[in-house]
Amino acid sequence: MFQINDNYQKLPGSYLFSTIAKKVAAFQEANPDKQIIRLGIGDVTQPIAPAIIEAMHKAVDEMAHAETFRGYAPDLGYDFLRNAIVENDYKARGCEITADEIFVSDGAKSDSGNIQEIFSEKNRIAVCDPVYPVYVDSNVMAGRTGTYDPTSETWSNVIYMPTTKENGFVPEFPKETPDMIYLCFPNNPTGTTITKAQLQAWVDYANKVGAVIIYDAAYEAYISEDDVAHSIYECEGAKTCAIELKSFSKNAGFTGVRLGYTVVPKELKCGDVSLNAMWARRHGTKFNGAPYIVQRAGEAVYSEAGKAQLKEQVAYYMKNAATIKNGLVEAGFEVFGGVNAPYIWLKTPDQMTSWEFFDYLLEKANVVGTPGSGFGPSGEGYFRLTAFGSYENTCAALERIKAL
Amino acid sequence: MFQINDNYQKLPGSYLFSTIAKKVAAFQEANPDKQIIRLGIGDVTQPIAPAIIEAMHKAVDEMAHAETFRGYAPDLGYDFLRNAIVENDYKARGCEITADEIFVSDGAKSDSGNIQEIFSEKNRIAVCDPVYPVYVDSNVMAGRTGTYDPTSETWSNVIYMPTTKENGFVPEFPKETPDMIYLCFPNNPTGTTITKAQLQAWVDYANKVGAVIIYDAAYEAYISEDDVAHSIYECEGAKTCAIELKSFSKNAGFTGVRLGYTVVPKELKCGDVSLNAMWARRHGTKFNGAPYIVQRAGEAVYSEAGKAQLKEQVAYYMKNAATIKNGLVEAGFEVFGGVNAPYIWLKTPDQMTSWEFFDYLLEKANVVGTPGSGFGPSGEGYFRLTAFGSYENTCAALERIKAL
Repeated sequence: MFQINDNYQKLPGSYLFSTIAKKVAAFQEANPDKQIIRLGIGDVTQPIAPAIIEAMHKAVDEMAHAETFRGYAPDLGYDFLRNAIVENDYKARGCEITADEIFVSDGAKSDSGNIQEIFSEKNRIAVCDPVYPVYVDSNVMAGRTGTYDPTSETWSNVIYMPTTKENGFVPEFPKETPDMIYLCFPNNPTGTTITKAQLQAWVDYANKVGAVIIYDAAYEAYISEDDVAHSIYECEGAKTCAIELKSFSKNAGFTGVRLGYTVVPKELKCGDVSLNAMWARRHGTKFNGAPYIVQRAGEAVYSEAGKAQLKEQVAYYMKNAATIKNGLVEAGFEVFGGVNAPYIWLKTPDQMTSWEFFDYLLEKANVVGTPGSGFGPSGEGYFRLTAFGSYENTCAALERIKAL
Repeated sequence: MFQINDNYQKLPGSYLFSTIAKKVAAFQEANPDKQIIRLGIGDVTQPIAPAIIEAMHKAVDEMAHAETFRGYAPDLGYDFLRNAIVENDYKARGCEITADEIFVSDGAKSDSGNIQEIFSEKNRIAVCDPVYPVYVDSNVMAGRTGTYDPTSETWSNVIYMPTTKENGFVPEFPKETPDMIYLCFPNNPTGTTITKAQLQAWVDYANKVGAVIIYDAAYEAYISEDDVAHSIYECEGAKTCAIELKSFSKNAGFTGVRLGYTVVPKELKCGDVSLNAMWARRHGTKFNGAPYIVQRAGEAVYSEAGKAQLKEQVAYYMKNAATIKNGLVEAGFEVFGGVNAPYIWLKTPDQMTSWEFFDYLLEKANVVGTPGSGFGPSGEGYFRLTAFGSYENTCAALERIKAL
């Protein structure tokens, strides 16, 4: 008689954004006349840039003719894309990363969920609190997190590193030593980040205690300040302790196009075992490459035209971020983030819980955001708004919030 | 100090097709003047059908405008595709499968590697021998397979069901009771299949012993005989014991486009726990949907024009299959498969091992095939040729083989 993976039964509730979607759908059904503005999930709204559209049309045409048709892609990604990544995201920043350390994938969510597979189930993970739910949930499914305490909303075997206004949203080294440390900067959900010097301290710590850092750099394109690292490999020693996850979703609007990549340096080892070889084996066995058309779209992100168009797109969203930030401050809210990231993290007013504020905002302003507590216990009393709406909707939402 | 998933260290050698690619590359480098014909890996060569190309261009254009732009897809796939699948692949065949039992993915390789995750690591798997390597390797990585014996090339905790000419390539019920049974019909690698009545017996067996069947129907479109089931859900009782994996790679040439789906019926349960809900949770946590453009391509597979064009494409490959089969018989080989599947499985001549014949064919005829032993110990002494080349190359390869 077959048995299931019992770890799944430990997962409380459903995935955060599914819960929000259901609540919003119920509200809309009960109030069909209300114009809801969605600043909740981090989904982009601007169309794909012209240079990328052109590249995709060209790739589609190639698939239409036997001479240019492409079947299975190389397991780890086409050279044209891996080389463009190396040149632009690493070499241009002085990071010595080579093409065979780049693993092209169907997106950073898949990679951030799957990366834990190559590690022992005995490893203990550390996460910032609040945190992107996938890091924790994928480790729950793998049986690494111990038991769940519904009162504290924490797992017995997870090390939580609170990032709140009290510590300036900079995680402190934990008292207990972790084996795997998930870091995401600029941060989702808080929209805050840490300096390159602070990131260097984390790299030094990881090398000292023998931990691996899973570094999620999905929001790198939104960095506006000089002392913030765009890649963890800007830090000395990162290649012996860090894996970096990158997304095309936010810098190029690929949430519905699906493309990402993971960097596993060849110097990253456990004893004699190369993690680069392990991840290559995982890719080769359980994945069959990102679509050719999508990899050509990714290549166009790095073309001169693509770069110029995407710079404008990022600026568009960051104008929204400033609009939200300034509007909220004007309305008397305490606000964080929004300078190096497209997320604004606000303190809920009047001691409201995060979900109370979610309901309040949905009902009174018909604006959807994300409850901070959905990202972890230290997110309680906070709320996330995203800058990924249209400028018009963003302004309208802020007018509604200011009028509350 | 972090530790790795030790199960990866148990995996012998590299992924079969990587090994072949390296051998072929080495031969080509040493013999730059030789025209190698590749009938090894099951990669298609015909261009994408016009109706699908048109749908992709249209979808690319939609992504270029804010009003029609699509961000994150629904976790489990767009309704337009799930509904088309239900209508064409199930309802039209009298199978009662609903859209919420369909999970759209980036391909059947990912699904066939990932599906084991929702099951207990204590489950014992049964596989046909020879077998598509992903079923076994993904279970090795998960720690379900025990220890590897390099002499017999088998795992201590895997139940092997030999399929050879002695039993007509029909697996027999194993002596020990398995928890999870991987079945693939029409079969990769042997190109043979079983009748609907024989499949019904497997469904009855699984329901009786409480096993789950992972049914890989990737080659369904190549079925030419009436008494062969296109879906396991044509068998009575399959919804309480079977998960079905489907690919668009072979019926529509999507090996480089990437699209597949998995059916997990709501009636499939372990005690009170719904496997449909578990797989939905896995999808929602570790996957972010197939690209919008690719899902529109999938929809076009089911359009009237798409169906007509793909019928021709399948016929083209099956003409190759007949060419290979007849040519090999003429050359004195003992040959199986090729009637309901695009694979031809031949007995190696003169007691050659599979790899000896691989080297012989590569060196003497400059033709690449796949050694049967790469698919499992009972594949020793067999060799696979695929019908996915161009007609011209297929004829040329057979002329060379006949001239040996």
